[in-house]
Amino acid sequence: MSVLELAGRALAEESARFAGLGWMRGTSGNLSVVLGRDPLRVAVTVSGRDKGELTSDDVVLVGEDGLAVADQPHPDKVPSAEAGLHARIAAVSGAGAVIHVHALAPVVAAEHWPDGVELRDLEMLKGFGRAAHDDLVTIPVIANGQDMRVLGDAFEAGFRADTPAVIVARHGIYVWGDDLRHARHRLECLEWLLRFRVETRLVGEERGVR
Amino acid sequence: MSVLELAGRALAEESARFAGLGWMRGTSGNLSVVLGRDPLRVAVTVSGRDKGELTSDDVVLVGEDGLAVADQPHPDKVPSAEAGLHARIAAVSGAGAVIHVHALAPVVAAEHWPDGVELRDLEMLKGFGRAAHDDLVTIPVIANGQDMRVLGDAFEAGFRADTPAVIVARHGIYVWGDDLRHARHRLECLEWLLRFRVETRLVGEERGVR
Amino acid sequence: MSVLELAGRALAEESARFAGLGWMRGTSGNLSVVLGRDPLRVAVTVSGRDKGELTSDDVVLVGEDGLAVADQPHPDKVPSAEAGLHARIAAVSGAGAVIHVHALAPVVAAEHWPDGVELRDLEMLKGFGRAAHDDLVTIPVIANGQDMRVLGDAFEAGFRADTPAVIVARHGIYVWGDDLRHARHRLECLEWLLRFRVETRLVGEERGVR
Amino acid sequence: MSVLELAGRALAEESARFAGLGWMRGTSGNLSVVLGRDPLRVAVTVSGRDKGELTSDDVVLVGEDGLAVADQPHPDKVPSAEAGLHARIAAVSGAGAVIHVHALAPVVAAEHWPDGVELRDLEMLKGFGRAAHDDLVTIPVIANGQDMRVLGDAFEAGFRADTPAVIVARHGIYVWGDDLRHARHRLECLEWLLRFRVETRLVGEERGVR
Repeated sequence: MSVLELAGRALAEESARFAGLGWMRGTSGNLSVVLGRDPLRVAVTVSGRDKGELTSDDVVLVGEDGLAVADQPHPDKVPSAEAGLHARIAAVSGAGAVIHVHALAPVVAAEHWPDGVELRDLEMLKGFGRAAHDDLVTIPVIANGQDMRVLGDAFEAGFRADTPAVIVARHGIYVWGDDLRHARHRLECLEWLLRFRVETRLVGEERGVR
Repeated sequence: MSVLELAGRALAEESARFAGLGWMRGTSGNLSVVLGRDPLRVAVTVSGRDKGELTSDDVVLVGEDGLAVADQPHPDKVPSAEAGLHARIAAVSGAGAVIHVHALAPVVAAEHWPDGVELRDLEMLKGFGRAAHDDLVTIPVIANGQDMRVLGDAFEAGFRADTPAVIVARHGIYVWGDDLRHARHRLECLEWLLRFRVETRLVGEERGVR
Repeated sequence: MSVLELAGRALAEESARFAGLGWMRGTSGNLSVVLGRDPLRVAVTVSGRDKGELTSDDVVLVGEDGLAVADQPHPDKVPSAEAGLHARIAAVSGAGAVIHVHALAPVVAAEHWPDGVELRDLEMLKGFGRAAHDDLVTIPVIANGQDMRVLGDAFEAGFRADTPAVIVARHGIYVWGDDLRHARHRLECLEWLLRFRVETRLVGEERGVR
Repeated sequence: MSVLELAGRALAEESARFAGLGWMRGTSGNLSVVLGRDPLRVAVTVSGRDKGELTSDDVVLVGEDGLAVADQPHPDKVPSAEAGLHARIAAVSGAGAVIHVHALAPVVAAEHWPDGVELRDLEMLKGFGRAAHDDLVTIPVIANGQDMRVLGDAFEAGFRADTPAVIVARHGIYVWGDDLRHARHRLECLEWLLRFRVETRLVGEERGVR
């Protein structure tokens, strides 16, 4: 099995998990893993497929522009337009894997706090790579759009190496990590944190948290 | 395996999925696929069966009036009364498959916005076949009733080719597409959108969205 | 396989389903089927067992007083104290099966409407055996208690043959039907209806529904 | 299979169950069973592993200080820092098993009632080992922190033998019992109770319950 196929299999397995959670409705969302750095080579799930039914073949190799590279096993397969943002995130952050899903809580949170969602003094932040105490974490929120360069610029403008996620308003969330499992663990924890934030919103406002 | 049996198997598989989500309680809801156009022939799930346990036999062939056609393998099986609305939707919209389920979010949304549920500037609208920006989508809401001709007239009066869904107030939702998977993908996305709308209702009202 | 074992197997299968939904936490809840009428003989799930792991042996045969009858395969097994209410419901209603679970929505609904939960003009009422229009359904709410005769009296005082359910306040719900599947279908529909009622509570109050 | 491996297998099975419920996100949470009393020996799940994928080897034997004992099959495996609180709870309460998960409802409840969450007159309290009537149960809430001795002192200061749980604010919950299943049953019931309390919070406040 080639490295690309192995990546495809891992992407398919993780996608099926998220589809089962209702986080990849229709054909939405995409996952990627970095296969090379110089030049950047990212294996991304194909566009337009049911994310609960991917196979190890449903993967495309893209470069730093998010476009399919010339020489690959399935030249007919099309990467998602969002592959460009995956590649940008991988390049800027150094992450080995990027997850983009449409979990509901992040999008609801961004609707409440469009300038960024603040999280602080919560144990689950450790699962996001931050401290459980006295460490204000702000999850950036960027405007939605269809031009991945514009989104990439907005992401990069708000990028902090210690905050491996960005919410796209009225759209979904990107979370990254060293590998797929690492990124998933961070996503699992962040989704919990954002859901907690939304469910306790009025308590938080009484205490003066933005 | 006959075309009708193949359709029955696909209907059973999709029904089991929706039953598992709690969207087909008791024996409620029904799914259909179009098998012929001239005259219209629609394969519909049978009435009165647990939708989590259908087999490929639990299907009835109906005509444009929603009544079982004369010549079919299981003349004893009864189509749902709602088969008439399935056939009407298939005839008017040209859809190849229609899904009717009792997901909660659409019915709650219709309770809040009985004149139609407006959705706009949400990425997930692409999974419903619309644009993510500057495209006001109004999901029609029609009154519930037991006469499928009345419901069909109400559906047709509000029909727009670019809006493949209608909510029946205090009842459930119909979503359609080219085939069962296409219709399901649209439903998955629309259910997310309606849940988002309900959960952010007060934010929306502050911003002046109906 | 004896009739009691067959009943036990059916009870175990349905219990596992409800346990998976989180409606039978710990060892709570119990299900029953009527095996004889004269005298009344009811097969009830045993007390104190994890309801997700019952076997066909985890069943006790009780009489109209809810106590284990003298002659049965597992004389050491103890029926739930609530078996008395199962038997009472079976005797009064003529039902063939009774389901008692701790789904959350019914208990929350009873907290809001302690004098009975009104449901009207909702399609899902058909799955509960009532009409979708112009048919006011009131789900009775009775006070919790440990004396099954007191609960049985309260149930019987509010009993209507067309309303096959009763909520025990701050406790759970009983739903019955001709057989286990029938009772389950009614419960599935009623749980949806009560959840809908709770989620649209403020809309309902604006419209003057109790 | 050694006693430690048997414990590891049981811990892995229960962990997978909680992971499936979303109560052990990322690598968070830990479970333990007591293997000896004099001196105290507790088998605890290892730190840093996906709790949905543990094997019978992913277990560490710790003493009353929560540190790994010298002689064990996998000396390279590291117990969670929280093992110290597991051991403290086991020592103080005499419990045979302790469960620590990050279910959402307990943390939301603690945000509303930071001085303790009161539960009373609810049938489900029986599944937590208390009475269904006239028995005020207060689930203690202690401040979060990283020093397990401080948390242990706070736990012990609020310990009552009849209340086998403590919520760590903005963190998660600990529940204990005679064995893993007993502790899980109590957790299942308590999670239901706390969710009920949160969902009916405003009703409760109107009635003067704290």
